[in-house]
Amino acid sequence: MQRTSFLSHLECGWCGATYDADRLWNLCPACERPLLARYDLEAARQAFPREALRGREPTLWRYTEMLPVRDPAYRLTLGEGFTPLLPFKRLGARLGLTHLYAKDEGLNPTASFKARGLCMAVSRAAELGVSRLAIPTAGNAGSALAAYAARAGIPAHVFAPADVPPVFVAEMRALGAEVTLVEGLITDAARFVREGVAAGRWFDVSTLKEPYRVEGKKTMGYELAEQFGWRLPDVIVYPTGGGTGLVGMWKAFAEMEALGWIDDKRPRMVSVQSAGCAPIVRAFQQGADTAEPWENAATIADGLRVPAAVGDFLILRAIRESGGTAVAVSDDEIRAAQREIGAQEGVFVAPEAAATWAAVQHLVRDAWIAPDERVVLFLTGSGLKYTHLVQDA
Amino acid sequence: MQRTSFLSHLECGWCGATYDADRLWNLCPACERPLLARYDLEAARQAFPREALRGREPTLWRYTEMLPVRDPAYRLTLGEGFTPLLPFKRLGARLGLTHLYAKDEGLNPTASFKARGLCMAVSRAAELGVSRLAIPTAGNAGSALAAYAARAGIPAHVFAPADVPPVFVAEMRALGAEVTLVEGLITDAARFVREGVAAGRWFDVSTLKEPYRVEGKKTMGYELAEQFGWRLPDVIVYPTGGGTGLVGMWKAFAEMEALGWIDDKRPRMVSVQSAGCAPIVRAFQQGADTAEPWENAATIADGLRVPAAVGDFLILRAIRESGGTAVAVSDDEIRAAQREIGAQEGVFVAPEAAATWAAVQHLVRDAWIAPDERVVLFLTGSGLKYTHLVQDA
Repeated sequence: MQRTSFLSHLECGWCGATYDADRLWNLCPACERPLLARYDLEAARQAFPREALRGREPTLWRYTEMLPVRDPAYRLTLGEGFTPLLPFKRLGARLGLTHLYAKDEGLNPTASFKARGLCMAVSRAAELGVSRLAIPTAGNAGSALAAYAARAGIPAHVFAPADVPPVFVAEMRALGAEVTLVEGLITDAARFVREGVAAGRWFDVSTLKEPYRVEGKKTMGYELAEQFGWRLPDVIVYPTGGGTGLVGMWKAFAEMEALGWIDDKRPRMVSVQSAGCAPIVRAFQQGADTAEPWENAATIADGLRVPAAVGDFLILRAIRESGGTAVAVSDDEIRAAQREIGAQEGVFVAPEAAATWAAVQHLVRDAWIAPDERVVLFLTGSGLKYTHLVQDA
Repeated sequence: MQRTSFLSHLECGWCGATYDADRLWNLCPACERPLLARYDLEAARQAFPREALRGREPTLWRYTEMLPVRDPAYRLTLGEGFTPLLPFKRLGARLGLTHLYAKDEGLNPTASFKARGLCMAVSRAAELGVSRLAIPTAGNAGSALAAYAARAGIPAHVFAPADVPPVFVAEMRALGAEVTLVEGLITDAARFVREGVAAGRWFDVSTLKEPYRVEGKKTMGYELAEQFGWRLPDVIVYPTGGGTGLVGMWKAFAEMEALGWIDDKRPRMVSVQSAGCAPIVRAFQQGADTAEPWENAATIADGLRVPAAVGDFLILRAIRESGGTAVAVSDDEIRAAQREIGAQEGVFVAPEAAATWAAVQHLVRDAWIAPDERVVLFLTGSGLKYTHLVQDA
């Protein structure tokens, strides 16, 4: 039986204006904020019970009905999503935590969580007729775009800071993308993408600047619920650059409640950033609704080196509504955490991912997390692209 | 309900001698050939219908009953196995093939198929009380051992050729392994492991030198059957170094037939090697039962640089019984194949994996594969550890 998407329309996350979901959009034309996909949840509540998932493929496409791609021919797959939820007993015991888990996103195609968002954005862009794609990246998003664009047969243009680790450039080129290195940060790379958009050269799939990357990312929330037997964990610890994952999971929880899959209990959402670039942490502490850009951003965790996020208000909203918090950790803590996760649990993680374990240590020390709470670390990517950080280990 | 292993005993693949499966063994004490795990297939046929798989976890542990670990506490997992089977429509069309598929083993923990074998070997070694593990490796097996040994809390010693790409060393060390670099090839590294065994320093988990790596690898065969709806493909194209995967899949097919899961139709098994190290191809062409060691082995595909395989006779037997063949491809063909798989299908693969696509081109040109046959390429590992091969791409 063919599975049908219940996508109904797009809605601006800031001003609430609505738009036709079957046309191409970037930011809200009215207020330049992110558009979010909305579904006919009434109809889906009847037609898509959670029992329907049993026996489906172990990828994010098992949630087809709540994803935006209408035609099965455009549902591109490289095996993304449904990543393992691993008990971290040894590290948990160190802090007296009895229920510490990690979601290993490094097992996605191109070895990071970015595959989820770009899988969805490229699939939907292809369905809506886009013939050329571009993205600014710290590395992993560019690799993921390259992979799915190749799968779709659409040319991809990637703009990355010149100090991006060479492994990313090799990977993106091996996947057929055209790669341009740019002096500066990801925000500088973004300028090149914008200029190309203005010139009509390509469609921009930057974080939250089109509506569908967040739809791919939200599947992390669906998976958590399913893997925990429809009882969400108490705390989710998430490294935050652009923040799509956190925003996406928060959206997923609301959708699942509307579908009747879960109750109204929510995890406390913890945003982790590097002390060298912590705009969300600062804004959270100041009680602000949006985040001021961070000056002189510097950290070994390239994916956290995002001085300004277009979805800042959505991230802050999710943290606050959940009773969560935001934590900054140092690069030294990140390095130590990376070694501990590797040697104690057997997962070689990227520095962004390692930051979550560093943050949990703060939160347990501050008694913000209780010993018997179920805590999930999001290990957003593999360490294989960051071996330069451990060469002398 | 607890799932019980139907493991019954061990049997030598060469002389047929049998051994107690609940003691530790390396090679057959009688003839120094590989021991294979045997199961009570009569009992399993009743107790383990294939319908039992529905809804189980998407890892190789879904086949628990036909795996050797008895105590669930020792079933280590990092999310290994149940890798995606991807249609390769664009590459298939180039050769007029209508049913070309690829099994992407690069999505395993530590980014290669080696995770399957080492997951099983380390789990079972831990269950049988081993306190220290060692392995010779071209890279990926060492990484996989490091990961599962860390997960088990058992120290791991890895011996690799000095020219192993540095990314492997960084990965293995990040996973807590002790790494020793050795002048020469993997066969020279193996000497160090043997010396340590003789001195009682560790247990040797070399390819086919203990009975359980092949049990992990055989799950590739179970998955293929399940993913194809219990109708095996016509041709399996497999890169062959130590050959455990090919031997394991062949064993899986026999077990599944005994379980009543599949009929007696078998795929033709194709062993792919590099022209710079092709002992199995040479032995196959000469009609020999075993393979002479290859002199001056040299290829960019490190995993195929295996001059002598202890399971040579098992590999040759599987190829012949299946009506298969063995093909050698050049390093230039491997490089070209790697670029094509990346740019056309969106998977960045290791050179060993790329060799399969090079081989298929020969086999279609020679009309050994017909246009409508279902053909599966085994993409045994990710290209992320071999970016030095594409830096100038």
